[in-house]
Amino acid sequence: MTQQQVKQCIEECLKCMQACNHCYDACLNEEHIGMMKECIRLDRECADICAYAAQAMSRNSPFAKEICRLCADICEACGNECKKHQHEHCQRCAEACFQCAEACQAMAA
Amino acid sequence: MTQQQVKQCIEECLKCMQACNHCYDACLNEEHIGMMKECIRLDRECADICAYAAQAMSRNSPFAKEICRLCADICEACGNECKKHQHEHCQRCAEACFQCAEACQAMAA
Amino acid sequence: MTQQQVKQCIEECLKCMQACNHCYDACLNEEHIGMMKECIRLDRECADICAYAAQAMSRNSPFAKEICRLCADICEACGNECKKHQHEHCQRCAEACFQCAEACQAMAA
Amino acid sequence: MTQQQVKQCIEECLKCMQACNHCYDACLNEEHIGMMKECIRLDRECADICAYAAQAMSRNSPFAKEICRLCADICEACGNECKKHQHEHCQRCAEACFQCAEACQAMAA
Repeated sequence: MTQQQVKQCIEECLKCMQACNHCYDACLNEEHIGMMKECIRLDRECADICAYAAQAMSRNSPFAKEICRLCADICEACGNECKKHQHEHCQRCAEACFQCAEACQAMAA
Repeated sequence: MTQQQVKQCIEECLKCMQACNHCYDACLNEEHIGMMKECIRLDRECADICAYAAQAMSRNSPFAKEICRLCADICEACGNECKKHQHEHCQRCAEACFQCAEACQAMAA
Repeated sequence: MTQQQVKQCIEECLKCMQACNHCYDACLNEEHIGMMKECIRLDRECADICAYAAQAMSRNSPFAKEICRLCADICEACGNECKKHQHEHCQRCAEACFQCAEACQAMAA
Repeated sequence: MTQQQVKQCIEECLKCMQACNHCYDACLNEEHIGMMKECIRLDRECADICAYAAQAMSRNSPFAKEICRLCADICEACGNECKKHQHEHCQRCAEACFQCAEACQAMAA
């Protein structure tokens, strides 16, 4: 990985963290919250691993690759849940998750 | 706070988190590491609260203001330590810390 | 604070973190999830600050007192929400929150 | 995994987190800090993943196994570094790391 690629992967993680946290907050305010419970759960999982991965990459962690591999899996799962829901916050979140998963997979390779 | 101001404060926290983590890594690799120990310690403190504050703001935490007030204090302390050292990573980190402290103080007001 | 008091405050934070995370998971599985949304939100807030405070105290952070003051406020708010609900996980969580708030206030004093 | 095994794995993670943070703080205060730089770095890595794994298990994360697998690897690496140093904090930390690695491997299996 070049420095530029690492930097971009950090950016994707931070965008995804924000999209997941925004989606989590919005899901908690949805009228039909019962339908959103998996989304709420996965948004938290995904925001937390993305924050963790961004921190790890930016401190040049010797485990950055392994952490990104895990992050890619969680992003994938969160994106798959979010894309089932028609809310704009879910659709945007799914997009951020898949972009982040791709960047993390490249980082982990 | 407008949405735009919150968004900008999140951006400052995330920039500061990256600068602190980069500085932490670079300090651990400095030849005269004994002089950098407070910097190493405060870089970690500051990176962690910045990541935490960015997460809190992006999930619309009811405690975002209090968290930003604490973040401002820690950024200030980290910036004051970093600016004592002539390494470029320390000078850049100090700058990011002071910018983040200012944004967090505005958020907390 | 004596070492023993710090150690006990760490223990309370870690118990509270576990109680909040357990309550969060259980709330997401409750039939009437709409009534639990504030509980879900505050459980996450509280678990995160408790984990953060425990880490800060155990690394002898120069900001441990300020962090514990914030932790006490968040624990208090989470406990007040949880105690409104009759679920056993909420009642247990409220108890852990109030115990942790007390320990953190003593630490912050 | 039984509930009892999960509970024990959480306990090991939290003990290891505390041992790593204590060792990190003590290493930063050692006279010959230059020899301790890998220990400082790995202590932070290990404390952070242990806190993260404990949170994940206590919220019944669908990714608990994967997170514990990563935690086991990081604990192993940190324990191997710590055991090279004769300081009591390093020896105790190594012990906590290896115990936690074992519990996390069982959890991940």
